[in-house]
Amino acid sequence: MESITTPSYDIHFNEVAYEALNSHLKQANYSKIFVLVDENTHQHCLPAFLSGMETTQDIEIIEMEAGETNKTIETCIQVWNVLSELDGDRKSLLLNLGGGVVTDLGGFVASTFKRGIAFINVPTSLLAMVDASIGGKTGVDLGPLKNQVGVINQPQMVLVIVDFLTTLDKRQLQSGFAEMLKHGLITDQHYWSTLKEVTTIEAMDPLIERSIQIKNGIVIQDPFEKNYRKILNFGHTLGHAIESYFLEKDSNTALLHGEAIAIGMVLEAFLSSKISGLGNHQLEDIKNTLLERYKKIAFTPEDIEAILALLKFDKKNSHGHINFVLLQRIGEAVIDQQVPKKLFTDAFAYYSE
Amino acid sequence: MESITTPSYDIHFNEVAYEALNSHLKQANYSKIFVLVDENTHQHCLPAFLSGMETTQDIEIIEMEAGETNKTIETCIQVWNVLSELDGDRKSLLLNLGGGVVTDLGGFVASTFKRGIAFINVPTSLLAMVDASIGGKTGVDLGPLKNQVGVINQPQMVLVIVDFLTTLDKRQLQSGFAEMLKHGLITDQHYWSTLKEVTTIEAMDPLIERSIQIKNGIVIQDPFEKNYRKILNFGHTLGHAIESYFLEKDSNTALLHGEAIAIGMVLEAFLSSKISGLGNHQLEDIKNTLLERYKKIAFTPEDIEAILALLKFDKKNSHGHINFVLLQRIGEAVIDQQVPKKLFTDAFAYYSE
Repeated sequence: MESITTPSYDIHFNEVAYEALNSHLKQANYSKIFVLVDENTHQHCLPAFLSGMETTQDIEIIEMEAGETNKTIETCIQVWNVLSELDGDRKSLLLNLGGGVVTDLGGFVASTFKRGIAFINVPTSLLAMVDASIGGKTGVDLGPLKNQVGVINQPQMVLVIVDFLTTLDKRQLQSGFAEMLKHGLITDQHYWSTLKEVTTIEAMDPLIERSIQIKNGIVIQDPFEKNYRKILNFGHTLGHAIESYFLEKDSNTALLHGEAIAIGMVLEAFLSSKISGLGNHQLEDIKNTLLERYKKIAFTPEDIEAILALLKFDKKNSHGHINFVLLQRIGEAVIDQQVPKKLFTDAFAYYSE
Repeated sequence: MESITTPSYDIHFNEVAYEALNSHLKQANYSKIFVLVDENTHQHCLPAFLSGMETTQDIEIIEMEAGETNKTIETCIQVWNVLSELDGDRKSLLLNLGGGVVTDLGGFVASTFKRGIAFINVPTSLLAMVDASIGGKTGVDLGPLKNQVGVINQPQMVLVIVDFLTTLDKRQLQSGFAEMLKHGLITDQHYWSTLKEVTTIEAMDPLIERSIQIKNGIVIQDPFEKNYRKILNFGHTLGHAIESYFLEKDSNTALLHGEAIAIGMVLEAFLSSKISGLGNHQLEDIKNTLLERYKKIAFTPEDIEAILALLKFDKKNSHGHINFVLLQRIGEAVIDQQVPKKLFTDAFAYYSE
């Protein structure tokens, strides 16, 4: 797998990732090296990662509690305090070793500690590899509102070590796979067709590389999400609201991010068929492909009402409008689409059919 | 007073400030306008400010509690939540109407809400006019650690309306004046001499303009404080520690920022005489000038020990070294100076003589 370059940082894979990290550490002269983990990556990923690192510097490990419910400002306060107590200074480096929660929160903590220290993302989940760790979006949730507080700030580098995927269960892998399917839907019909054929999630290296290329290619055209980058939000307007709703309702039965986004993609594909010209054949293809892979959720009318009420907090909104990304056809997305509210319940009905 | 331009925003004064704001509001098409105030600026500044604004849009007022002890992440959480509840979106504008606490905290809240919305600083204290509101440093305190969490991000514009100074008491004015004296000490001996002659703080317009020019001239050469911008920290290494210490000890007798920085400047002038060649005559001039204006504090040995312990949290530190800005002579500063610890107690002894 070839390294991928961006205007401000590089993405390296597997053995090359360790080489790039070690050579960076040699020349960067950091005063302190911190590694942020959660209890899972502490146990399952940190030993292998540390054995690949070559440095004579002390490395301090900071552990946060795993899971989306801990992606909060309160956790940030804990990490900022630990960094202060361990004499973190502006020349310190924070390595974020974990899934999207660790890379999103760790990126925000680093971007704001003493007005900004360097950080490197080392994603350990499929979702973080193909999505969260790439593109410089950092942030945490504010109560039920996903990523309501954050900044856009790029890491020094991203290290994708595919072996870490062996530490994940199948449900986690499927969650990340939803973002890859999205990459096909918004930019590349051929890639969508390839992904549909994937039945066991093995030998994923070239697909991971392709997804990162797609995401990175979008981000570098519009790093601050003024326009084009918004297409990455396909499935996320309703998907985020669904994820927030179930997270708040009962964190034990909460959906994983990709599971919520998969539902969001079916719903927004339906809206696309009504608004932006997506053909019925492709709509059915999307629905069937996603429902084959992701458990169908039974929504009550009360669920739907509460989910729709959360839409007003979507970050793409402006001037009181909810702005959707919709599909014109598989492989082609269009931004800033407004949708009459009555179509939302039709979309849920179509999903539930 | 002429407007001052920077690469990314402009600083406007008095009537021109209102004209610039109103014309900006006309063309920027913000979805919502929020004004952050504290209880003091709500009462004393907001009515005049609103009467100068021309817009047909609704304006939402958000009030925070006044004072450095409220410059915390907890206050940010309250403001982020209010922005969410009042349907703040990415096209919203936050106007920060207040002293340094309001502009520092409001700038940070805006820079991180939904990964960043626009903000405009309207400083109402002398300190905020000549220092805090200029240069893009935003942030809040973490426990006793000043500005430990923040980002560097520039406002859309800064509006300096000198009339607001009439709402301040003399002690507040003197606090801001300390930063102006610093501007003379680090860059301009002639300006220092001019400021020494100021006995009543009236007709300050040209001096405020000169101080903003000095600060802005430094910031635009080095916005992210890699090197040269550090000279603005003269007096602040020990001054911040002194401010933190008294704030934590008893918030009722806490020093104002400028009062603490004035002490820090005497101490660091003493260090300059030992390390970087400041002459004794100029050292005496600095001490006499500052002690004439700022109340002398009696430090116990325990106070000094606790203050020195806080130095390790200074943001200019790296690799375990405390880095000082010192003077070579009045009007010329030098960065990254290391000072043997035994000189610190000598400095306090010199201050107390």
